[in-house]
Amino acid sequence: MQDCIFCKIVRGELPSFKVFEDEHVLAFMDIEPVAVGHVLVIPKEHAMNLYDASEESIAQAFSAAHRIGPRVANAVGAEGFHITMNNGEAAWQTVFHPHIHILPRYPGDNHDPWKKHQRSREELARDAKKIQTLLG
Amino acid sequence: MQDCIFCKIVRGELPSFKVFEDEHVLAFMDIEPVAVGHVLVIPKEHAMNLYDASEESIAQAFSAAHRIGPRVANAVGAEGFHITMNNGEAAWQTVFHPHIHILPRYPGDNHDPWKKHQRSREELARDAKKIQTLLG
Repeated sequence: MQDCIFCKIVRGELPSFKVFEDEHVLAFMDIEPVAVGHVLVIPKEHAMNLYDASEESIAQAFSAAHRIGPRVANAVGAEGFHITMNNGEAAWQTVFHPHIHILPRYPGDNHDPWKKHQRSREELARDAKKIQTLLG
Repeated sequence: MQDCIFCKIVRGELPSFKVFEDEHVLAFMDIEPVAVGHVLVIPKEHAMNLYDASEESIAQAFSAAHRIGPRVANAVGAEGFHITMNNGEAAWQTVFHPHIHILPRYPGDNHDPWKKHQRSREELARDAKKIQTLLG
């Protein structure tokens, strides 16, 4: 897509610190990292996010993240890592091209997990039913 | 695996609020949700996490998360959602069977994004080189 900054990186019109590339996927350093070794994995095919991306392009990107993730963590001396994908503005997505964050974690890095959201068994059962209906 | 609680859920030895199931994958409500509509997608095949899971089982789980994620968000009236996978104790993993979190997001739900970690261009280039070496 003409104006998408990740498409521009794919086409070589913008610079990036690449760590992996094949026919379908590109991985490069996030230049606004939230951790040392914060890598982005993107499908080369343009879309906005999981709402509209093709099954194949997302499968290729997650498959690359699976292969790359543990090695990124090892390379930077991390003890674990998250794979995260933000979909929609409400989920902090800022670049509207699908991208998977590899987020290495270190002892004492002081990220706080989200607080639990109290939800009764009855509410969970109701949520499940609502979701099933849309999946059926 | 005998003592794994997610394997027990797969085998029906523990209850769960299921939202989707096929031959390879199961999706059910997280009973300690951090958001309304917090769903877990797991491969039925046991492993610890992305460090040791089979390529196929993870591909099937992410493919299901891709199909299910937008519909979960729609079902619960969310405006976006995260797909997150925690790998290793340092990354808050508590159940050691691969699982993908679908985390719906709502306006004003007050989750704070992680702080940026200052990293110079030179450091990023060095990180990229270190990672490339392990990927090569």
